[in-house]
Amino acid sequence: MYEQYWKPMGDKTTIVIPGWQSMSYFSDVTNLCWFMEPELAKQIVRIHKVVGNAVTEGRHIVVGTGSSQLLLAALYALSPQDSSNPISVVSAAPYYSSYPLMTDCVKSGIHKWAGDAKIFDKDEPYIELVTSPNNPDGFVRHPMVNRTGGILVHDLAYYWPQYTPISTPADNDLSLFTVSKSTGHAGLRIGWALVKDVEVAKRMIKFIELNTIGVSKDSQLRAAKVLEVVSDSCEQAGGSEYTESFFHFSHTVMTERWRLLREAVKRSGLFSLPNFSPAHCNFFDNNLGTQPGKNNKIFVYMVYFFLKVVQS
Amino acid sequence: MYEQYWKPMGDKTTIVIPGWQSMSYFSDVTNLCWFMEPELAKQIVRIHKVVGNAVTEGRHIVVGTGSSQLLLAALYALSPQDSSNPISVVSAAPYYSSYPLMTDCVKSGIHKWAGDAKIFDKDEPYIELVTSPNNPDGFVRHPMVNRTGGILVHDLAYYWPQYTPISTPADNDLSLFTVSKSTGHAGLRIGWALVKDVEVAKRMIKFIELNTIGVSKDSQLRAAKVLEVVSDSCEQAGGSEYTESFFHFSHTVMTERWRLLREAVKRSGLFSLPNFSPAHCNFFDNNLGTQPGKNNKIFVYMVYFFLKVVQS
Repeated sequence: MYEQYWKPMGDKTTIVIPGWQSMSYFSDVTNLCWFMEPELAKQIVRIHKVVGNAVTEGRHIVVGTGSSQLLLAALYALSPQDSSNPISVVSAAPYYSSYPLMTDCVKSGIHKWAGDAKIFDKDEPYIELVTSPNNPDGFVRHPMVNRTGGILVHDLAYYWPQYTPISTPADNDLSLFTVSKSTGHAGLRIGWALVKDVEVAKRMIKFIELNTIGVSKDSQLRAAKVLEVVSDSCEQAGGSEYTESFFHFSHTVMTERWRLLREAVKRSGLFSLPNFSPAHCNFFDNNLGTQPGKNNKIFVYMVYFFLKVVQS
Repeated sequence: MYEQYWKPMGDKTTIVIPGWQSMSYFSDVTNLCWFMEPELAKQIVRIHKVVGNAVTEGRHIVVGTGSSQLLLAALYALSPQDSSNPISVVSAAPYYSSYPLMTDCVKSGIHKWAGDAKIFDKDEPYIELVTSPNNPDGFVRHPMVNRTGGILVHDLAYYWPQYTPISTPADNDLSLFTVSKSTGHAGLRIGWALVKDVEVAKRMIKFIELNTIGVSKDSQLRAAKVLEVVSDSCEQAGGSEYTESFFHFSHTVMTERWRLLREAVKRSGLFSLPNFSPAHCNFFDNNLGTQPGKNNKIFVYMVYFFLKVVQS
């Protein structure tokens, strides 16, 4: 979707890796997350500071093979290991369709999918997955279980300026991000978690050790390079190097896609789309609406389909 | 360990990836394993043909984030989903220390670690992990449970000429390999499975979709490049491009390490090391002994320690 931004970047985001580099399992033995490339950690802190979408102070960064692996690592880390019953995992409907399948993939004895957070009323511990903006519908979300004491995991894959107004830096116990949505580089399979509790971070790292013994160094180096250019483009937008920031470009792409979709849906008379109230975006310093990023390809096909139907 | 081979290779194994390439989740939608780079699949088939260590005809290749992920995918794929009890997973002691931890990581309801294959005598289905050469002791292994009907997973990470004589192409239902051991590129986190049954391959792919939504494209491309050079070095050894094959080099490295270790252990008088009977290696066309690759760094530290003790 964002290839048209990256193509003219030329060598700025090109990585060159000789055959003898990055051969070891280890990236930084001084870091709790020993398989994380230091340059990636540096660029993660920087991009959150530039965008203002997450607090990184007092957080441990854990890198993962996409945010899927990090979600599984979080469930492992947060589930009581010595309980006779698996802990319930919930999320407010409509939720990401893979959550139930991921949670129950191997019929875990420590966690179990328990459905819609809005109707969960068991008097027992639970983990709530808070996806904001939500996948698939794009609405800003808060915890929905009607009581306190839940363990929260915030999936913030879409909390970037092209999709939703950045109202405040996320300040959660455990937040998940990924380059798949932020920069469009899904093929790298790189995500990261910002984790407040060091013991939770340690258990997440243990899970990734047992799951894949770390994370591709090549993709970490590439993600670091891409994030560096995104931050540079924000700080130097309008200069000789960057005519516009990556987020200005991607916001424009999303706006145009939503304009086409709304137009096609309106002409069809068959469906309706949600309306999102504008809110102030600190990054753009402007009042803007939400533009959900989920299923963009499906949206494009729908636009094509509706236009064809209407024209025929 | 093998960096000294790769450093003089120069640009032969260097990869260059522009920022706009390999952005998609998909690598090849015509392949069952839709997230596998076609060039990697091609080089996997080629290296097995060149080395003669595995049959690839009639096999589905599944790429994974290292062979750890593929082992978990295999357990998922081979475990009955509708049984009231988890299937037993066994391996002959001494076994890879992570097997029990990986199998029981989230207390799965479909598979459960059941210990030493040599003493497993339950009259029920089981999965046996056959690691050959074995990790940690290097011995060639065959199934050890004393009856037929077990489901076998062959972990062949060390079945390469620098570690053990290549006596015959592996012709199993499900074999696992990794570049971590074959070429020394652990940081890539790339492994592959050769799978006979298409339904098993499909379920392994499903597991990887739920676990990490595919495998780093960057590392797949790099693994393809490294494997290509290894095959080239075997086919052109002694020519102007390659003075010796990668496996000649790495076999010499392993021989020297084992010579040092045996010498140090002998002088210490404290320990003993196993002796391996020579066998014919089809790749080198020579009678050779096994040189276990496990814990090479520990071996080096032991050599250093013993020599220091003896000298002091």
